[in-house]
Amino acid sequence: MSQSFVLAVHGGAGPMEPGQVRHPGRSRYDEALCRALRAGQAILMRGGTALRAVTEAVRILEDDDLFNAGRGAVLCADGSVELSASVMDGRTMRVGAMVGLRRIKNPVLAARALLRHPHGMLFGEQADAWAEAAGVETVRSRYFRTPARIRQWERSHQSKSVPHERGAGEASHGTVGAVALDRRGNLAAATSTGGLVNQLPGRVGDTPIIGAGTWADRTCAISTTGRGDAFVRMTFARRVADLVEIGRKRPGTAALRALDELTRVNGRGGCIVIGRDGRLAMPFNAPQMPRGWVVGRSAPVTAIGKDDEAAVG
Amino acid sequence: MSQSFVLAVHGGAGPMEPGQVRHPGRSRYDEALCRALRAGQAILMRGGTALRAVTEAVRILEDDDLFNAGRGAVLCADGSVELSASVMDGRTMRVGAMVGLRRIKNPVLAARALLRHPHGMLFGEQADAWAEAAGVETVRSRYFRTPARIRQWERSHQSKSVPHERGAGEASHGTVGAVALDRRGNLAAATSTGGLVNQLPGRVGDTPIIGAGTWADRTCAISTTGRGDAFVRMTFARRVADLVEIGRKRPGTAALRALDELTRVNGRGGCIVIGRDGRLAMPFNAPQMPRGWVVGRSAPVTAIGKDDEAAVG
Repeated sequence: MSQSFVLAVHGGAGPMEPGQVRHPGRSRYDEALCRALRAGQAILMRGGTALRAVTEAVRILEDDDLFNAGRGAVLCADGSVELSASVMDGRTMRVGAMVGLRRIKNPVLAARALLRHPHGMLFGEQADAWAEAAGVETVRSRYFRTPARIRQWERSHQSKSVPHERGAGEASHGTVGAVALDRRGNLAAATSTGGLVNQLPGRVGDTPIIGAGTWADRTCAISTTGRGDAFVRMTFARRVADLVEIGRKRPGTAALRALDELTRVNGRGGCIVIGRDGRLAMPFNAPQMPRGWVVGRSAPVTAIGKDDEAAVG
Repeated sequence: MSQSFVLAVHGGAGPMEPGQVRHPGRSRYDEALCRALRAGQAILMRGGTALRAVTEAVRILEDDDLFNAGRGAVLCADGSVELSASVMDGRTMRVGAMVGLRRIKNPVLAARALLRHPHGMLFGEQADAWAEAAGVETVRSRYFRTPARIRQWERSHQSKSVPHERGAGEASHGTVGAVALDRRGNLAAATSTGGLVNQLPGRVGDTPIIGAGTWADRTCAISTTGRGDAFVRMTFARRVADLVEIGRKRPGTAALRALDELTRVNGRGGCIVIGRDGRLAMPFNAPQMPRGWVVGRSAPVTAIGKDDEAAVG
């Protein structure tokens, strides 16, 4: 129990948006990320597991309508929301992944509940039903659909844009995720998203795919964000882990190399990764990626663009 | 165009079943595998792509009610069928994956059609609807539900078995897959399944997960079979590919190591893998895995158990 602990979170890689103009240390993004970090830090400080810390940090970000996850998720082509999340416990290698939820308030809690079930992944109405039966809180669909997201959907609908043609960067912006190393040296990762604005209902992106959006084992923990289809096509998170374990790279070097490979297939996004030694890396190839971290009892640090990594929350 | 070509298929790893008692070179399994191999071989022989060959081989196995894919798929807990398939083209790294189809006659053709779409993966009713709109043939649910599968479901239902308690080996038996290397040196892989007997509707196994059930890049092509949840938990197919590419292992050595890692998490199953040099490996840790291969113009070779790898179809 003597080891120090580390927690990192992200709020999605994407283009700079007007609402995100940075007032150092004071934007809504910084505040939201700090809130998530402090909650996870409190868990880790009293000896809680990395799994609990990442679940709680992601739950808090889901509840904030600033992000494209839980409340405030983007809308599909038919105006509905479909929420996906996944969790992996690096200690046990158990996984829980939920695809296309419509009624569960916190998708990450549904994924967390599934961790104990032999089926590691569920989709659609049965996923909602299973989570509800497992005691995870449900809400009506109007809970998720904020006025800002309805306006965004109307704009994208009027312009007949489809996510792969324009606005894809914006569209995928706001996925949330967390990675942690706890005092026992165990790692965990969690990721949650509403997908792409105007996506076909039924689309599965990288977020609920173990090995694409989320990965944790004994060597590292990873959560990704960006244009999910490219991350799925290269199994991004597992790629980083394999570069660490097979290729003997440091997690940061591995993440940079995987991001370089992603860039070559026109993928845009980023990831957060923690190694077993607590080293953090948070590379991205989009204009910004709101992110933050705590190391032990330190105050949370947050950053949004590439050149402001020192803001203290 | 001077390079030779290779095609391999599998019909699912699992326990020995009464109907599969082997009459060397003559069982229904051998015949079905040979039919798929000859069709794929004909495509490759006239210069067709690995992608076309694996799609056609899997389509033929789906149509055979002997296997747990397409017609003859196992039934979910509620007596329904949910079919999943995925395809990956190693030349372009494009992917297509379909989860939980109920109306598409050949799930592999739906996955193949999605290869051209920016969404690499769809689930549920929207997946059915998209494939139907794309011109893929639909059928009524009674097409899939064979008398043998209904009897199997009734037995499992009466005994209240759940897939993770007993019968899981049997249950997952019969997933089908193919890997190929074409004359231009390109690789491709495809996999298709009905999942586990008595599974929760909504379960996602490894088959439709790129990197778990299916993978193809410029170094190797892999299709897996077995207890899908364990394969998902270790991103099996991508693991093999990374051991080849990062770890500089031969595909056969890499597949054996990944299978050894799978065994350590109580995973049961196997895979077929082709390297860029055309070398084949087909390791499995279950009692049997119906499988077969052709190399260039050679006659198809099939095998079922561990000790009968020389049967010529």
